[in-house]
Order: sequence, then structure tokens, then C-alpha cells
Amino acid sequence: MDIGYDGTDFSGWARQPSRRTVCGVLEDTLSLVLREDVRLTVAGRTDAGVHATGQVAHTDLPERVLAEHPPATLVRRLARVLPADVRVFGVERVPGEFDARFSALCRHYEYRVTDAAFGAHPLRRLDTLAWPAALDETAMNQASALLLGEHDFVGFCRRRDGATTIRELQRLDWVRGADGVLVAHVSADAFCHSMVRSLVGALLAVGEGRKPVEWPASLLSATERTSTITVAPAHGLTLVRVDYPGVDELADRAAITRNVRTLSR
Amino acid sequence: MDIGYDGTDFSGWARQPSRRTVCGVLEDTLSLVLREDVRLTVAGRTDAGVHATGQVAHTDLPERVLAEHPPATLVRRLARVLPADVRVFGVERVPGEFDARFSALCRHYEYRVTDAAFGAHPLRRLDTLAWPAALDETAMNQASALLLGEHDFVGFCRRRDGATTIRELQRLDWVRGADGVLVAHVSADAFCHSMVRSLVGALLAVGEGRKPVEWPASLLSATERTSTITVAPAHGLTLVRVDYPGVDELADRAAITRNVRTLSR
Repeated sequence: MDIGYDGTDFSGWARQPSRRTVCGVLEDTLSLVLREDVRLTVAGRTDAGVHATGQVAHTDLPERVLAEHPPATLVRRLARVLPADVRVFGVERVPGEFDARFSALCRHYEYRVTDAAFGAHPLRRLDTLAWPAALDETAMNQASALLLGEHDFVGFCRRRDGATTIRELQRLDWVRGADGVLVAHVSADAFCHSMVRSLVGALLAVGEGRKPVEWPASLLSATERTSTITVAPAHGLTLVRVDYPGVDELADRAAITRNVRTLSR
Repeated sequence: MDIGYDGTDFSGWARQPSRRTVCGVLEDTLSLVLREDVRLTVAGRTDAGVHATGQVAHTDLPERVLAEHPPATLVRRLARVLPADVRVFGVERVPGEFDARFSALCRHYEYRVTDAAFGAHPLRRLDTLAWPAALDETAMNQASALLLGEHDFVGFCRRRDGATTIRELQRLDWVRGADGVLVAHVSADAFCHSMVRSLVGALLAVGEGRKPVEWPASLLSATERTSTITVAPAHGLTLVRVDYPGVDELADRAAITRNVRTLSR
């Protein structure tokens, strides 16, 4: 399933008791429509307030349910029953080896920030951070380039369930659009918790002139999360795309993943 | 003043007692900041729910107040005190002949509508109409072309205070963007009440196949508002730009307007 949402009124993706979460709303709605208990696996468990235009999730369904609900019909049906702040753009039948989380090759995020004197444009205020000082995107791009590649990003991560903090940062750059808004393009094989927002927070300090260009990269030698970084607010961040291998490669990768998981037990 | 707003939570531009209006919020905030009673004249008095990215308004202020509040300072000050759904993008000192309403040469509107099966994108749902059936933009563009030029648009207007309904429609076409959203570009010297939304409503009937391509233009021969047109919802509509003459031309035009107004008394 290709999914988009306005994260403003959600307590993030992950289901939590007595909170409105994207996963909760989608699972409840799908369970109702399909008359089948649906549990979703997602590519990126976004935090409270973070948006998505290219989120991906999968579920396993019995053949009978799939036959009853062709993709095009299901999309129209969901459009009528889902709240307006979450949409299922498309539904596709995938090989059994596909896993929205473990098959993902690369996650792409964007962070929107404006340094305009007037603040954020009213119609884009939901997904754009208003920054109160001028930002030097040349300095921000220089600092960003120093962060590319495979590193232990522990200095930029909130510790969670002993997961690895070694990630390959494949893209990190800033583009100022015709509307003056600065957009960071951030891509990696995977991200640890709060990593994009910590990177953005560090780079905003550089853009504002409070920190030198070399400072964010110097934090790569840290052995734990650096308290000097201000994590950027959630509402500027959007998960825009997740890349997956083609069908042929899926089966090979699934076998490898199974082996790795067995080995790491 | 260049102004933008998300019209969702406003009862339109025009000040009304005990309603939240764009004019009311701006006048109250400006009066507070400038410690001067401010009354605004606006280019386009948008209806409840209509947005603006390029609205223009003017006011007359004593020299003392202008000296105390340089444009750049005023914009930053307003950014801090205005609610997030209305912004003053810029403030400029203009010749005394300038009138935001009467000097305007052309008003440009956009109307966003999507016929995607999943509905409107969550982050653009505030300014995009979700249409439940496929729309044929070729037919809509053919029908639109037949409406161009100077006509009596009384068939598309809600009567208000005996104003003329003869308008020159300078642009009306539909472009489907890469995101699949259809955007109507609508420009005229001026619009009468509900005219853009009536034009869009008639063209949506054509796009859906309920009415022939020639139907909207056939309504130009009407002598009163046609009840067969469904006025399109307000939230798809945005005032995007207002054109004004250069400084040299302003004085000439102001003289002409004064003469016309005198003659028409």
C-alpha cells in the first residue's frame, strides 16, 4: 500500500493505546472494510507530527479476501471511509517475499524550512518550519557534504531497542526553491530514531552562523547522543519515497535477510 | 501590502460583526501594532473559505507612522503577532494615486481539483477539491475557450449592489500537473460575485460528461443567474495574483477613474 498523511493530528505511525496513530486508523479501517483482522508492517515508523507522501506498508491476506477486493475498488472504498488526513494512494499485490520494512533499500525524506521574514506560507504551514533568522544554504550544503557515507550516527540518534546506529547517508543537500523555501533532501538505507531531525537541527545551527561548517561532522566521532544538538521540530519533516528492489531481486534478498536474522540470534 | 491566507477558518475577507474575517484580523492587528486606526481597501473581496497567495490591500497612514515603522521591521513584527493562517508577505510605500481595488488591472485565480480515486492529498486537502468522477480536461479546455473575451456574465453571477456583470475573461484553461491535480487558471479585469466558482462548476459538469462542451458558453445569453449551475466549493479557489500599472501610468488611471466615478453619479 502506498500511503500519505498529514501528521499534524497523529501521535506518529506506531500504534499506541488511546492515542490517534496512523497505523491505528489504517488497521481499524482496513479491518472493517475487509472484515479481516489486519496488521500492517511499515517502511518508516514516523514520529508524532511527521508527514508522509510516500509511506509504504504491507499486510498478508487470505486469497478469498484479495479476490473480493480488487485494488482499484479497495482504493475507492478507502477514500470514502478514511479521515481526510490519511489516504491510501494505491494498493498492489506483491510477491510473498516482499516486506515493506526489510525489503526497503532506501528511505527518502524531505525537510522544509523557511527563513522568510513573514514566516511560513499559510497554505504550507503544516509542513514547513518557520526559522526566525536568515539561513546560509551554502554553509549548510558544505556541512552536509561532510556527513555523507557510512558512519556510526550514534551522536545523532535516540537510543532504541539496541538497534545499530551505523547507517549509510546517501544524500543530504539543501535546495532553495523559487518560493524561497529551503528543502533538505535526506536519503539513507535506513535511519535510526530522530536521526533526520538531529541532522537538520545541527545544520540549521550552521546555517544561522552559530556553529562552524565542520561542527556536524565532528559529532560523528561521538560515542553517545550529543545533547548540544537541538532536534528540529517534527512538522517540517516528510517521508517522500521508499525504494524497493525489483521482483527478481526480492527473492534473493529475502533469503539473505532470513540468514542474517538467523545468524544474529 | 502583499497578503496570503488559508481561508479555511475565515468567514471571507469582508469584515462582519462577530465573525472571524481576514480583514477584521488584519485591521485589528495593524491598528494595535501601528497604534493608529487602520482601514484596508482590498483588491479582491474573497468569499468564506477562499484562499489567497497574492492578495493586495492598501491603507493611508500619517507620515509619522510610516517613519516609525519601516517596511522590513513591520513585516517581522506582523509575523510575530498575526495568527499562522494569515501572513503579510511584504509592505511597500506607494504613490497616493494607488488604490488596491480601483488601480487593479487584472485579477488571477487558480482552482485546484483532483479526480484521483484516493481523493485529495492530505497535505493539500485544504486547497484542493476532491471530485468523485474522472474529469476530461480536453473537453473542459474546449468549453473554457468558448467563454473567453468580454461578455455579460450575469448567468454566472450572484447579484450584488447593482454592480456591472460585464467582464473581460482574459484567461481560462486547465493544466493537469505531474501530481495529477487539475489546476484552472482564471484571469479577468474583475470578477462579479461567485463568478469563478460558477464558471468552474459549469466546467466540472462538462469534464464529467454530464453537459456538452457548448453548454457553459450557451449560458452567456442568460439574463439572470442560471440555477442549473452548481457553484464549485470555496476551498479549491485561491487568489494568486493582482496586476497593477507602473507608477507613471497610475496617475493617469487615477484621473480617469475619478472622472468615470463623477460621470456615473
